[in-house]
This record gives sequence, C-alpha cells and structure tokens, in this order.
Amino acid sequence: MPLCIEDLELWYRHIAAQGVLPLTVGGDHSITYPIMKALGAQQPLGMVHIDAHCDTGGEFDQTRFHHGGPFRLAVLDGVLDPTRCIQIGIRGSSEYLWEFSKDAGMTVIHAEEVAIMGIPEIVRLARAVVGDGPTNLSFDVDGLDPVYAPGTGTPEIGGLSTREALAIFHGLKGLNVCGGDVVEVAPQYDPSTNTAQAGAQMLFEILSLMAFSPALKP
Amino acid sequence: MPLCIEDLELWYRHIAAQGVLPLTVGGDHSITYPIMKALGAQQPLGMVHIDAHCDTGGEFDQTRFHHGGPFRLAVLDGVLDPTRCIQIGIRGSSEYLWEFSKDAGMTVIHAEEVAIMGIPEIVRLARAVVGDGPTNLSFDVDGLDPVYAPGTGTPEIGGLSTREALAIFHGLKGLNVCGGDVVEVAPQYDPSTNTAQAGAQMLFEILSLMAFSPALKP
Amino acid sequence: MPLCIEDLELWYRHIAAQGVLPLTVGGDHSITYPIMKALGAQQPLGMVHIDAHCDTGGEFDQTRFHHGGPFRLAVLDGVLDPTRCIQIGIRGSSEYLWEFSKDAGMTVIHAEEVAIMGIPEIVRLARAVVGDGPTNLSFDVDGLDPVYAPGTGTPEIGGLSTREALAIFHGLKGLNVCGGDVVEVAPQYDPSTNTAQAGAQMLFEILSLMAFSPALKP
Amino acid sequence: MPLCIEDLELWYRHIAAQGVLPLTVGGDHSITYPIMKALGAQQPLGMVHIDAHCDTGGEFDQTRFHHGGPFRLAVLDGVLDPTRCIQIGIRGSSEYLWEFSKDAGMTVIHAEEVAIMGIPEIVRLARAVVGDGPTNLSFDVDGLDPVYAPGTGTPEIGGLSTREALAIFHGLKGLNVCGGDVVEVAPQYDPSTNTAQAGAQMLFEILSLMAFSPALKP
Amino acid sequence: MPLCIEDLELWYRHIAAQGVLPLTVGGDHSITYPIMKALGAQQPLGMVHIDAHCDTGGEFDQTRFHHGGPFRLAVLDGVLDPTRCIQIGIRGSSEYLWEFSKDAGMTVIHAEEVAIMGIPEIVRLARAVVGDGPTNLSFDVDGLDPVYAPGTGTPEIGGLSTREALAIFHGLKGLNVCGGDVVEVAPQYDPSTNTAQAGAQMLFEILSLMAFSPALKP
Amino acid sequence: MPLCIEDLELWYRHIAAQGVLPLTVGGDHSITYPIMKALGAQQPLGMVHIDAHCDTGGEFDQTRFHHGGPFRLAVLDGVLDPTRCIQIGIRGSSEYLWEFSKDAGMTVIHAEEVAIMGIPEIVRLARAVVGDGPTNLSFDVDGLDPVYAPGTGTPEIGGLSTREALAIFHGLKGLNVCGGDVVEVAPQYDPSTNTAQAGAQMLFEILSLMAFSPALKP
Repeated sequence: MPLCIEDLELWYRHIAAQGVLPLTVGGDHSITYPIMKALGAQQPLGMVHIDAHCDTGGEFDQTRFHHGGPFRLAVLDGVLDPTRCIQIGIRGSSEYLWEFSKDAGMTVIHAEEVAIMGIPEIVRLARAVVGDGPTNLSFDVDGLDPVYAPGTGTPEIGGLSTREALAIFHGLKGLNVCGGDVVEVAPQYDPSTNTAQAGAQMLFEILSLMAFSPALKP
Repeated sequence: MPLCIEDLELWYRHIAAQGVLPLTVGGDHSITYPIMKALGAQQPLGMVHIDAHCDTGGEFDQTRFHHGGPFRLAVLDGVLDPTRCIQIGIRGSSEYLWEFSKDAGMTVIHAEEVAIMGIPEIVRLARAVVGDGPTNLSFDVDGLDPVYAPGTGTPEIGGLSTREALAIFHGLKGLNVCGGDVVEVAPQYDPSTNTAQAGAQMLFEILSLMAFSPALKP
Repeated sequence: MPLCIEDLELWYRHIAAQGVLPLTVGGDHSITYPIMKALGAQQPLGMVHIDAHCDTGGEFDQTRFHHGGPFRLAVLDGVLDPTRCIQIGIRGSSEYLWEFSKDAGMTVIHAEEVAIMGIPEIVRLARAVVGDGPTNLSFDVDGLDPVYAPGTGTPEIGGLSTREALAIFHGLKGLNVCGGDVVEVAPQYDPSTNTAQAGAQMLFEILSLMAFSPALKP
Repeated sequence: MPLCIEDLELWYRHIAAQGVLPLTVGGDHSITYPIMKALGAQQPLGMVHIDAHCDTGGEFDQTRFHHGGPFRLAVLDGVLDPTRCIQIGIRGSSEYLWEFSKDAGMTVIHAEEVAIMGIPEIVRLARAVVGDGPTNLSFDVDGLDPVYAPGTGTPEIGGLSTREALAIFHGLKGLNVCGGDVVEVAPQYDPSTNTAQAGAQMLFEILSLMAFSPALKP
Repeated sequence: MPLCIEDLELWYRHIAAQGVLPLTVGGDHSITYPIMKALGAQQPLGMVHIDAHCDTGGEFDQTRFHHGGPFRLAVLDGVLDPTRCIQIGIRGSSEYLWEFSKDAGMTVIHAEEVAIMGIPEIVRLARAVVGDGPTNLSFDVDGLDPVYAPGTGTPEIGGLSTREALAIFHGLKGLNVCGGDVVEVAPQYDPSTNTAQAGAQMLFEILSLMAFSPALKP
Repeated sequence: MPLCIEDLELWYRHIAAQGVLPLTVGGDHSITYPIMKALGAQQPLGMVHIDAHCDTGGEFDQTRFHHGGPFRLAVLDGVLDPTRCIQIGIRGSSEYLWEFSKDAGMTVIHAEEVAIMGIPEIVRLARAVVGDGPTNLSFDVDGLDPVYAPGTGTPEIGGLSTREALAIFHGLKGLNVCGGDVVEVAPQYDPSTNTAQAGAQMLFEILSLMAFSPALKP
C-alpha cells in the first residue's frame, strides 16, 4: 500500500477519535478509500455518492490504489456496506468497468435516469438505501455536467446540473452523516471560476448536512 | 445622496417627460433606484425582477446607495409598490439580508422553487402580482446560473437557465411595461462571450415586450 | 457550383458505392448538401436535424452554396424529401429566413417547444416523420445552448442541453440511418474544451445508431 | 468589384473632401484598398505598415479583393507609391506570396530583423522611406506576437511586442500622416481582453500622430 | 480615515514591534499607505516601486485613501522619503496625475526607458537612490505588461516582462529591505494562471531579498 | 523498466534502422530517454536542449523513469555524451536537482543569461559544444515563458520568447541533426491556442534543420 494511503488513514483515525466529523477537499478520488478505512473501522459505512463514474474498478496501471477504484477496496475491506450505497449521475461508455457496483449490490442511478425519475424520487430512494446508519457523502465534481465543472480530469457530457445536485443534498437533511468529501476539482482546466465555486458551495451543503447529523455529538 | 444618483434621476425624468420608455444597460443594480424615482414619480411602479439577490438590503460600507439595496430605497420613497413586486431566482446563503422584501409584502420566488413550480405557474403569478399598473422589468444577469453568465460580480450557483428566463419574459406579453434594465453584466470576468450574448438577448426580449405595452403611446 | 461542392459529391458517391455509411465531421453546414446529393441519388433521404437554424435559406452574399441553405438546395434537387424531415432546436430572431421549411412540409420544433413537449414526444414524432426510409442525421453543434457549445460561429441562447440531445439520439435506435454529420464545431471560440467534447460524443452516438441501422449491410 | 469595396471608396472620398483625416477600425485588411483609392486619388500615398504579412498577394479563391492583397491592388491602381512603403514585422512560411512587395520596390523588414536592427534604426529607415509626402499608417494587429494579440485570424509566432510597436509609432511624430487604420482585431478568439486593449492603444497612438501631422489643416 | 486603514496600521505596528519583516499580499495598492505608516514611524522609508502608475494622485471620488494615492499620503505624513524613492515601469496617458512624484523629488523611470537604459543601469540607479536606509519594495503586478499579468484592474500595454522584473530584483541583493508587498493581483480577470504565478514568484524574490537584508535581526 | 519505455526504444530502433530521422511529438519528457537509447546505440549523441529544467534528476516517487530525469539515464547508459550537451533556458528554484548536469560536464545556460549573452553568442556556443557529431534537438515547451506557452505542466516565469527560440534554431542550420522532439505541450491548460501554435512552429523549425542535416541520406 502506498505510504500516502497509510498516512491518510492514520490521520483520519486520529480525527475520528476526537469525535470530529471530517469534511475533506481533494485531491482525486483515491483519498476516499483511506478515509473510509478510518471512519468505517467500527461499523461499515453507507454512502451517497454523486459522480460520473462508479469508481469501483479493479487494478489499472499496475495498482489498485487509483482514483477509479476506492469503493471496491472499501467494500472488500469491509468498511463500506454496498447495500447501503447509492451512486448518482453515472454515465459514459465504460459501463463494463463498474460491474462490481451491481454485483456487490450498490444502487446505481445513471445520469439519464435523473431527468426521468425526478429529484424527489431520487431523494426518497437515497434515504431508503442508506437508512439510519453512519453515512459518508462523496461528491466528485465530475458528477456535474462539464458546463458546470469544466475544471476536472475526466469530464463526461450529460451530467447533473448544480440545481439538481443542490436539490439532492437538500433532501438529505437529518441523515446520519459522519463524513464528506468534494474531490476531483482541478481549477487549472477551467478558464472561468465556475468549477471552484460549485465545489465550494457543495462543501457548504455537506457542512450544513453535518450540522443536522445525529453523528454530531453535542 | 451621491451626485451620480441625482444625475440619473434627472436624466430619466427628462426621458420620461418625452413619453419615451427607457431601456437601460448597466452598470450595477444601484442605477435602478434613480430610474425608479423618475418613472414612479406619478404613480408607484410594480416590478418583475429576475435576480439571485432581492437587493432590498440596508446600509453597507457606510452607504445606502449600493447595488444591494435599490428596491428598499425605492419602496421607502414611495415610487415602488412592494405588493406589486415579484422577485424570481433568489438564492444563496444571505437570506437574512432580504427580510425587507417579505416584510414589505413582495413576492419572492427562490431559484429552487422555479423547477418545482414550473414556468407557466410563475408567469401566472407574476401577471397576478403586477396587474395592470405601470411595471418595470429589472433583469440582473446573476439571476442566471453562472454557466450562462460567468461575467458578473456576485455569481451564485443554482440559477435560472436562459431558456427559463426567456420563457418567463415570453409570458409577460401585454403587461404595462414602462421601463426595463439589464444590469451587472461584466464581460471581463467571462473568457467566453456568453454573458454578453445572454444580456443582449434579454434586452431584445424587454424591447419586444415594450413594443406590446399599453404604456407605449402611439 | 463551387468546385469544392462538386468534389465532395464525387467523393461521397465513391464512398456510398462501396456500401459504406459515411459519418462526417465539419466544417460548416454547407458540406451536407453535396453529401446528400450523393447519398440521396437513388432515393430521397429523410432527416433528423438538430440545429438552431433551419438552414433552408436562399441566396445570400451572391451565392446559394452557403452554410444557411443546404437543405433548400437538397429539396430542390430532389435528394431530400421534406415531408420526411424534422428540424429540432430552432430559435433566434430570423424566423422569416426559414419559410421554405414550412412551405415544403418539414416538421419544425422550436427550442422552447422542446421543454414543453418533452423528449419522449419529440422522439415519437421524429420516428413518425422519418419512417422506415433512408435517413440522414445532421447535428449542428449550435443546436446546443452556447454554454454547452460556445465554440461555434452563430451561437443562439436558449438551446438544447447535451442531456436532451443525447436522449433524442438514444430514442432513434433502429432507424434506417444511412449517413450522419456533426458540423459547425469551431474550437478556437471556446476557451474550454467543452464544445469539442460535446461534438465528439455526438459523433459516437451517431456511430452507435449506425451500428443498429438496417442500412448497414452485414 | 464587390459593392462593399465601392461603398467604402465612396464614403472615404466624401470624408476626405471635408479635409478630415480618417482613422479606421477594421474589419479585415481588405478595407484598406478602397480607403487608399479615396485618400490617394490626388497623389499616391506612402505607407508605414506593421503586419505579419505583406498583403501584396494576387488572386485567391477566385477573387483579388481579399485581406491578403490590398496593397498590390493599390499599387496597380497608382494610389500607393511602393517606393514610399515600409512593411515591418513580416514573418511566417509563405514568403513566396509577397514577391510583389520586393519587385515593386517596397522596403520589407522581417520580424527577426527588428531585434537585430533595433528600433531607432527602424524608425530612421521608416522616416527615410516615406519622406514628406502624404502617408497612411496601417496597423494589422497580427504584426504583434500572438501573446499580445491572440484575437486575430492568422496569428504567427515571433512577432513584435507592444513595446516595440509603441516605440516605432513614437518615432514617427511629425510625419505627414493623412490616414490610419487598425485591422484584423477579432476579440472572440481572445479569452482575455489583451487584443482589444492593444488595438485601442494603437488607435490612440495613430490619433496622436495625426494631431502633429502637417496634413491636419488648422 | 477609513477604519480599515487604521486597522492595518495598528496591525503592522504590532508586527514591526516584534522585529519581524512583513511581506504582504494585496489587495489593492491602498494597503501600502498604512503599512508605511507603521514601518516608517521611526525613520522615513525609501522605496523601490515597480508599477504602471506612480500612485501619488490626490483626492478622487471624494476620498484620498484610494489605490492611486498611497505614496502621496505617505510622503505628506513624513513616513516616506521621496528623495529615496524610485518608481519603475510608469506609462499610460495620465502623466498629469503623477506630478507630485516629480515635484517631491522621486525618481521616475518610464516603461519605455527600461529598454533604452538597460537593466544594469536601472539597478545601479535604484541602489543609488535608496542608499543604505530602510527600504520598502512595492510590486504592483500591473507594472508587468498585460500579457504577463492580465489579471489586474488597470492594465496598460507596454510594460515590463517578468524577466526584466526578476533581473531588477536580483540586482537589489543586500539592500536594507524592511518590508515588501505584491498588490493588485486579481486572478478572476485572467483565464490562465499566469498572473497568479508571476505574483507568487515576485513574493519569493522579495522574501529572498529580505533574507539578505541587514534589517533582518539574527 | 516500464514496458512503455521498452516499447518506445524498440520502435525507434526500427525507425533508425530504415535510415529515417525521427521527429517526435510528446507526451512528457520521459519519452526522450528511450528515443536516445535507440538513436545513440551506435555512437553517443550530442544535444541542443531548450527547457526550463535540466531533466537530469534522480529517483523521484520511487521511479527513475519520470519526466525530470531522462538525460541522467541517457548519460549513464552511454548513449548521450554530456560534454556535447548544451541546455538553454534553465531557471526556477530547484537548481540543486540538476547537479548531475554540471558534474557530468554539460553546458548550462540559465534563462537570465540568455538576455545578457545575446542570441549570437548562444548560437556560437551551442555549435561549439555539439560539434559535428550526431545531435538530438529536444524542445520542451516550458523553455518558453508561460505567456508564450501556458499550456504545460510545470511553467516557470522568466523564460525564452518564441523569437529567441526561433533565432537559436535558425542559427543551427547545418548541424548533424539525427533526431528531434517537442514535448510537454498540454493544450487543455491554455485557454488560447498559443501553446499549440508555438509547438507546431518549433516542429517545423526542427524539420527544416533536418532537411539540411548531413545525417539525412539522399
């Protein structure tokens, strides 16, 4: 395991031990695996995951610790409960990479289904999937359409609008949120400041959800 | 009162005295206050206002004449009738700044409500609120989502699409439009030309509404 | 007729004679006329056409072979059957230029009607209009809203989202597609790479439709 | 001859007849030919010309009235005296297109020679070439390096800096300037505003030179 | 005096009392006045100042505390010794605004003189002007040409290159530097990251000069 | 050794065996090592290298085959003769990384020395260093200043202008050029097209030098 993965896990164990709920700014999505190892050590986590990609892929370029595979690793390590995971905004032409998600029992909502199902139904489904247990919110900025977030490494057209993402988060009030992250923001690819502003607002939304989380000890 | 505010009021009194309907390009939103003082001198105006912010705030940085407060000033001066005002697209985390809007009786439609209510209902409500009296159309380009209008000073994600803004304007045909403005367009913040094009099209829409306004004397 | 128009027609006749289905990257929309002359020589084509403009205009700047008129020429030459044509996403203030479309019997769907009708109804209508005959898919990138495709020469606000365009194409599976093109992509006008990515994905969608076309000889 | 060329010539004849010195903003370089026909009708003009290209090419795309040939036309019409012309900043791989410049006796300074000769020598040479006769200043923004002026249609690396262009203009004080133009500014290709600002400043410089020109009747 | 000016002065008095050399990131140039009031309280400062503007203007928009006048205020308060001030890179068409600089005895080097004098002579002159006394380094990013720093509020073409600015700073090693600032960096105006990178490097250069400053107590 | 490095070496051995002079477009600078292994197998190469970095660094992130170390590897393998190497444009704050260059006997010209020495002296020195033997030309686009080439991964301010780089290449006519590459062009970081145009022109310059190389067998 790369040293940086170990370092992250150690640091988040330290944070969690203080009873603090961590809100993390990436970096790429590979950082969520060690975070989950720390936060899910006592009890496997559930997850609401907005992304263009399921990130449950296997070995690539001779490593398993890349930004396309954190959730496979977390499930295999027993710190993420796939039956309490929902992945929203999935799209692109590499569906075969994400077979693990379905095999493991995750709920996968493709981007084109978002318009068809409507946000209220997605919120209802998300709440039903994650239930009352400890839950991580993971927001990959490429879950948004590239017009909202051109500043990212693997953009895919046809994604969520910021309005849809906000509405989903607004619907999650009261969940047992124990951690959150916004990842894959790469401002240098964005000649405007839109990606950074979208990422910052999503951090604020997760922070607001944490303020209402039962996981927050008074 | 700053001299520029006085100058603007005088100039618009001059324009109005000719029976001309002014269509104004901003500049920031502070310009709408003196315009309203001129156009509403005989009879308080109603307003259809598309914006991310209510712009009914109080003193800030030791002045009341900033771009976040023109409509408070206009109401307090009696040239704007708050019960004939609708504000559409409001959002962001500074709701407390806009208490005056609700206290004074304005109708406030938040951006997230636009998707839920649907455009036909918003059009119906806007027409009901402003009625047959003289009405100003004020379009702050930050009412649009930043992907449609990155070239502005206080962008907020989650805003209207140009298609929604166009559909609202199309629904206002026949209103008693006596003035209009497009404000807060700042092309230097936009590496594309999208903001300028959106602003120009909105000017054209307001101009078209003026052509059908009963306020236009033949 | 300009030599380049003749050259294109000859080349596409050559391609078509091999039983190959051509997928073309423009260039401006004037290239579609000679392509249609080649592909429709045996039997007039139908068309699903996504664009901000009908491109059925007449002589302009002393020529008929410009990018605003290919489909008028194709109809007049008998290689395009107007009753089997649907044009989706039309908008802007130059409706008078496209009278030929309606006079000739094409089905014209304006951009503002897309939101009102809904994608399933548009798909149903498109399939009904083109029927089982040989059909060309012509995607002008300015059919998309300028936030999705700023890199084009004649942008018009209020256009389709990539999600809508994708959903329309997904609904056309099984049509008798005999050719396709993506035109008017001009990356130099786009400081991001969004236009290029949107254009590339649309090529992929048309290619996928070709793979299921009865016109593809095994 | 295209009608627009005729229109321009007529208009500039009208201006010149009033004793006004015209300062023109393009548009592409084809506009300078009809301007010269008007201004040089009484006496052939000299020219200080900053550009990446000599613009003395022949027929192209079946026309002689394009933006690569105005000075060939002007010389052939007898309104531009090639022995009183200096062209500064020429570069690129199409030297063969500009044979007319040398054959006709123009002085051509390539971009790479600017650094070697130094600005004072270039100024001295320019003044010697144009002498005391009526002189046109023609500034094609692509004479600047693309980092100073990315917003143009035919950029060539290795061009002048704005500092060099300013220093050349500053050295021309007192010349018999009878007209000037800044052409080929295309802001849509420039995600910054640098090209527009450079063009605007060059207009100001030419205007300042006109203020000291003996051609300016008091 | 605005409260923020007072606050800054108090804070920098606090810093200076600890024997710390402050290196400041702006903000606009108005911040340098209160910094100088703190750092020059014991002994008037000298200054090496790179900028497009002298910033010695008088009242504007009903205030003296704007970003075009800090050095007039500092001289009038006796905390800046004008005879120990050099201003490098000055240009633009508002020379009349900066009469105070010359009247007070500052040394002013215009941008066009930089190329003529050469960097070694400028360095020699700067060292001679400021001498051994305590000296502030003030770098306004608009001293650079807009191609190096488009992200600023009042760009002027014809400015310094980063190479020239670096060479000037490199020549100042050993000066009695007691404070430094980089101001007027506004990344939102720059679709690339060049301005931010240039500003960051200049901070590093000033920091390096501080490390060799006799003002740095061991 | 990574497989891709082996693949490249094999392919270039194949090319070289045909008597072809390869001109390569990167990709990052790590590709030059296997190219040199192929081209220098018979006789160690000399090199004219324009870059912000010497790229003679050691192990980093647990590998030696990264883009900061190809020339150390090539020297250690005996395929690059350090005494016949000149590196031009070096700058930044990581001088300690490039100790190998000086220890091995390479000639290193820092960016700030380019202005001081002048291009003719640099050309003279480059020709003297590489002599008549087989020589590789390696152009890393970050050798240019970031205003000329913002589209690259490790920009450093204070670099060469395109005019300087062109003048250096023009001075190398007749060298025994046996290969060339342009690397580290990353257009997605550049909202304009300047980086791509600069890279393309440099390829053309190297191609032109190859046309005059004695290594080109007739």
